[in-house]
Amino acid sequence: MFPNLSLDAFKLYAICSCILALNLMVLSGMTGAARGKNKSPGNPEDAGKPRDTERTPDHPAVVRVTRAHWNALENIPIFWVVALVYTLLGASPLGAKVYFITFAAARVLHSFFHLKAIQPFRSIAYGIGSLCIVGMIVQIFMATFK
Amino acid sequence: MFPNLSLDAFKLYAICSCILALNLMVLSGMTGAARGKNKSPGNPEDAGKPRDTERTPDHPAVVRVTRAHWNALENIPIFWVVALVYTLLGASPLGAKVYFITFAAARVLHSFFHLKAIQPFRSIAYGIGSLCIVGMIVQIFMATFK
Amino acid sequence: MFPNLSLDAFKLYAICSCILALNLMVLSGMTGAARGKNKSPGNPEDAGKPRDTERTPDHPAVVRVTRAHWNALENIPIFWVVALVYTLLGASPLGAKVYFITFAAARVLHSFFHLKAIQPFRSIAYGIGSLCIVGMIVQIFMATFK
Repeated sequence: MFPNLSLDAFKLYAICSCILALNLMVLSGMTGAARGKNKSPGNPEDAGKPRDTERTPDHPAVVRVTRAHWNALENIPIFWVVALVYTLLGASPLGAKVYFITFAAARVLHSFFHLKAIQPFRSIAYGIGSLCIVGMIVQIFMATFK
Repeated sequence: MFPNLSLDAFKLYAICSCILALNLMVLSGMTGAARGKNKSPGNPEDAGKPRDTERTPDHPAVVRVTRAHWNALENIPIFWVVALVYTLLGASPLGAKVYFITFAAARVLHSFFHLKAIQPFRSIAYGIGSLCIVGMIVQIFMATFK
Repeated sequence: MFPNLSLDAFKLYAICSCILALNLMVLSGMTGAARGKNKSPGNPEDAGKPRDTERTPDHPAVVRVTRAHWNALENIPIFWVVALVYTLLGASPLGAKVYFITFAAARVLHSFFHLKAIQPFRSIAYGIGSLCIVGMIVQIFMATFK
């Protein structure tokens, strides 16, 4: 039913999607670690002694890793659906290689640059990732309406 | 392996999913623009001069676009997976048209109403989107257990 | 084009994904209910009378349900994509049963434990869900590179 589907393109989608899932899980784990190290629990029951957590601002180190996590969360699921549709509608193995590897590399680097506060590389990585998404969307529209 | 899949339904899924991806990307860009315009950077390294960003509340215009962005982020991925499963399990082209176009229109309008603080239309758009999801889930359960 | 796909595994994926979608939608509805009950609106236009919402901290009950919602939002979409890829690459019906039912149960319980502030069960449920994801990713890599 997906006459143009390339299994190689799908396997590359699978690998890149899993790498990005691990990217999210590592950021999630780092948030927990930053909360523990800086004694900045997310919930009152996670504090050693009673504490009005809800009204205490998070430690800056927690804020930073949380922002990196959210930025990943805002962008990676867009890849998951757009790249899947792009693959099922018949991505060429070459197109898949260019888009999927570039996006995965850009997003992993974005997390690194965000955590280390390295600009303008963080913004450049963000832009490259977004361009990959836009490129795939254009090709999906062309494949759908032709 | 998906004996009832309609390619027309899948193409509509592809288009609506891409429109909703663009909806998220536009809100993401608007957050950045609101941060720049109101001098309310998300990270200290984005400020022109050193500033204790972590403890300064965001500008209200940034808070508004951020809330619209998060609301989209809470709801659009649900569509991506539920509508995909609904399509692969054999959505009729008519059912796909009704659910997918209604949901996409409701969510794009929700973002607009949220940004412009227009009530009760924001809540109505939210409700219509949720009804589409519930309708598809009911049909998925019926198709799966029959 | 997906030579090893089991329709039974896909149907289980469909059911578990819909249950997790409903998990997210219930948490979203509970956030709205908590905002109404505790007079802690998310947007100024939702308050009965004018109020500087943007600078008033949310009520602790709203913060709690919001955190439970975000934690679900950080984890459930990872399942949607990883379990889909795992299914399409040829999950055995048994493997699908173990991973999908365990993950869905762990995440629904996580939301419950988070809302009720029940530790260490919240962390245990989180860990079990994460192990399911890691297990599927390992099997996807093995299936892809073999």
